[in-house]
Amino acid sequence: MQSFDTIILGGGPGGTTAARILARAGKSVALVEKNHLGGTCLNCGCIPTKMLLGAVAPLALLHAQQRIRVAKGEIAVDFAALQTRVSRFTKGTSQTLGKSLASLGVMLFSGRGEAIAPGTIRVHAADGHTDIKAQHVILACGSSSASFPGLTPDHDCVLDSTDLLGIASVPESLVIIGAGAIGLELGDFFSAMGSKVTIVEAAPHIAPLEDADVAAELRRALQKNGITCHEGARAKDLRTVNGQAQLTLDDGTVITAAKALVAVGRTPNTGGLQAEQLGCKLNKRGYVETDTFLEAAPNIYAVGDVNGRVLLAHAAEHQGAYVAERILGQRPEEYQSGPVPSCVYGGMEVMRVGQTADTLLREGKNVKVSQAALSLNPIAQASGGTAGFVKTVWSDGRIAGIAAVGAGVSHLVMVALLLIKEGYTEQNLHEIMFAHPTLDEIVSMSILAPRARVEQN
Amino acid sequence: MQSFDTIILGGGPGGTTAARILARAGKSVALVEKNHLGGTCLNCGCIPTKMLLGAVAPLALLHAQQRIRVAKGEIAVDFAALQTRVSRFTKGTSQTLGKSLASLGVMLFSGRGEAIAPGTIRVHAADGHTDIKAQHVILACGSSSASFPGLTPDHDCVLDSTDLLGIASVPESLVIIGAGAIGLELGDFFSAMGSKVTIVEAAPHIAPLEDADVAAELRRALQKNGITCHEGARAKDLRTVNGQAQLTLDDGTVITAAKALVAVGRTPNTGGLQAEQLGCKLNKRGYVETDTFLEAAPNIYAVGDVNGRVLLAHAAEHQGAYVAERILGQRPEEYQSGPVPSCVYGGMEVMRVGQTADTLLREGKNVKVSQAALSLNPIAQASGGTAGFVKTVWSDGRIAGIAAVGAGVSHLVMVALLLIKEGYTEQNLHEIMFAHPTLDEIVSMSILAPRARVEQN
Repeated sequence: MQSFDTIILGGGPGGTTAARILARAGKSVALVEKNHLGGTCLNCGCIPTKMLLGAVAPLALLHAQQRIRVAKGEIAVDFAALQTRVSRFTKGTSQTLGKSLASLGVMLFSGRGEAIAPGTIRVHAADGHTDIKAQHVILACGSSSASFPGLTPDHDCVLDSTDLLGIASVPESLVIIGAGAIGLELGDFFSAMGSKVTIVEAAPHIAPLEDADVAAELRRALQKNGITCHEGARAKDLRTVNGQAQLTLDDGTVITAAKALVAVGRTPNTGGLQAEQLGCKLNKRGYVETDTFLEAAPNIYAVGDVNGRVLLAHAAEHQGAYVAERILGQRPEEYQSGPVPSCVYGGMEVMRVGQTADTLLREGKNVKVSQAALSLNPIAQASGGTAGFVKTVWSDGRIAGIAAVGAGVSHLVMVALLLIKEGYTEQNLHEIMFAHPTLDEIVSMSILAPRARVEQN
Repeated sequence: MQSFDTIILGGGPGGTTAARILARAGKSVALVEKNHLGGTCLNCGCIPTKMLLGAVAPLALLHAQQRIRVAKGEIAVDFAALQTRVSRFTKGTSQTLGKSLASLGVMLFSGRGEAIAPGTIRVHAADGHTDIKAQHVILACGSSSASFPGLTPDHDCVLDSTDLLGIASVPESLVIIGAGAIGLELGDFFSAMGSKVTIVEAAPHIAPLEDADVAAELRRALQKNGITCHEGARAKDLRTVNGQAQLTLDDGTVITAAKALVAVGRTPNTGGLQAEQLGCKLNKRGYVETDTFLEAAPNIYAVGDVNGRVLLAHAAEHQGAYVAERILGQRPEEYQSGPVPSCVYGGMEVMRVGQTADTLLREGKNVKVSQAALSLNPIAQASGGTAGFVKTVWSDGRIAGIAAVGAGVSHLVMVALLLIKEGYTEQNLHEIMFAHPTLDEIVSMSILAPRARVEQN
């Protein structure tokens, strides 16, 4: 049986980051991936959606200038050409990633991994199986689109995000169930391409992880662009009927559209993994439980979506790097994520670092909020995208979170993160010379704005 | 004679920031401004140029998508409507600024200030003069476009930036003398609007304050867009001849264009100020000399362009805030600018924080450079703007500067600043979770890239 220092299950951002670091340090590494290297992020998640949104970005900017009567014009996006470009880019990047790992000495196994004994993994490939073993195992197998009874993609008119990303033409109409980042971004893109888009969210508001005021501002922008939002609306049944997607809500409302997208969350890829054979425990939702060192069992680590901590590519990457360096003996300390950034991209964007006011209030904390409107910022004025705001959430005199909604606010996420991480407040912000004019100045204004106490509603 | 706690000469970013802080703290403040509140930045500098560039931004994005054959289209920018919008915006903002200062109790004097005795200022207005006195004086009178013999705007075909910003129609051709931020940004805008643009720079390369490789990448982009660059080319004579601007270079080359812009630097507004009456010293170039507390004489401060330290609006603002807080007794420490950010905006942008490799080499320092190409970044790929790079300049194991050239890189300036300010290196960068995918990740890649020693050429 082939033996390695480390076996990594899953070739997404977490697994490939760990593989690169370990291989560079001279460790023997096996990387097992059942689909394409790069994982959900590269192949059917963050990257293809950003490529799609990049193609319609000139449209959003043009519309903003049109609204202020400074420019007019027509832009036609060639959907087929765009699909070809996206697919070439993701395939090419995946192949480059494979070559680069191989050149570092990483042994790539194409197949599905199954734990059969402590330190021993069976790789099921099309042509049979191989058993390999290692001193360390990193579980980095990610997650997949979740589905629920009555909300299961049939891959005909009821699609998951992978189906929709691979669709041959722009559907005349599209109903999206789930208004998290995936649903919102794909809704924005297809709306810009001419689909009549309806978004249905079971939670009280779209962008359910954000504060209600952020979601409300986003909803206003979506509705202005012709997107219909149903909030607090539970989907009861979704199926293909006569070549159309037919969605029935709990209250009996029926919505039909050419296609439906189910984007109701993610589920960990732990089915068939037999993680218990490695000594791991799964929680009720199927995620691998980890300790403060991201260890799931002695010498067994879990990073990224599969541990259920933060389902974001950059969290996986960050955890993968930590675990690899820990295996190399370089990271004796507990895993610290630091502030976690997140974004929803598109014509109207959302970004957040740290906690929302709602979360803190639910935890019984004292919460104050200071905010600044994007309309006060000359760069926002120049782009014509002045709707939205930046919101600083304070608890006990410290910044607990910074969130923003508006055109281009994803560009603010790393500045917000660094300001929080380094403990800036109104007291020491003068140490930083904010470049003028930049969109970033609105973050500074939001920190310095008068604070208002908020109460749970 | 009316007496104040503080008289501020100049209502630009430095003066108005100081006025606001002092008035909020209950001090009596007189603000003397001879033109419009907001200074060069708001009225004929950073802000109007950003509004112009914002209007053509959809064009640059569209061209990028056209080059990768994903979109096509036509955009027409209405120059007259744009000029009206810019003028309304700057006038409106200037008026709002005046009202907001007045509501804080700042006494606004419209006229030119002249020092006539220590602590005493004569304000020359159209209808005569008034003398006022104060315990503290802040000189914040800014700078104006410089001109040299043979290179003097005649306001016919040979224009300064204020003339060009107010021009009635897009000139068929435009020759720009001076390739600093003002020349480059206006060149980019008028080129996008259809002018045939030629840029003439006396220094060895355009963007003379940047490293040569950054300038070369920028030049490639400008030339691709049809802009001609003459570098190391000295202008000898520039005048209006037969309704055209005619520029003669040192080597005898003659360039004619419908209009010429002289953007060869700035000169301090100290003529007629009689700063010596306040006990101030001017240096050879006319700037007010200041000590490490920005004090020019006892109780006399100079902030912004007029002290010649850093001719950028945000530096003026930062200094203005420091001086106001110092007058309030809140800032016993010496003035610290921290890392200074700067940007050139447009379709292809430049940003820098800290020092260039060239400057450090001239100072005899050891210099290493690590860099990453924008083409490696998925957000750059999505926008189709993949030319350019981020460059980290190292000296003695610390980051001495970060510079970038490429589409949208002005968005990276504050992240670069915070990383430098907080002393990040490859050792502790893992403490930060970079959001994926963001353009910001390329800054991280550039810091982590292998370093190469650079030598003076």
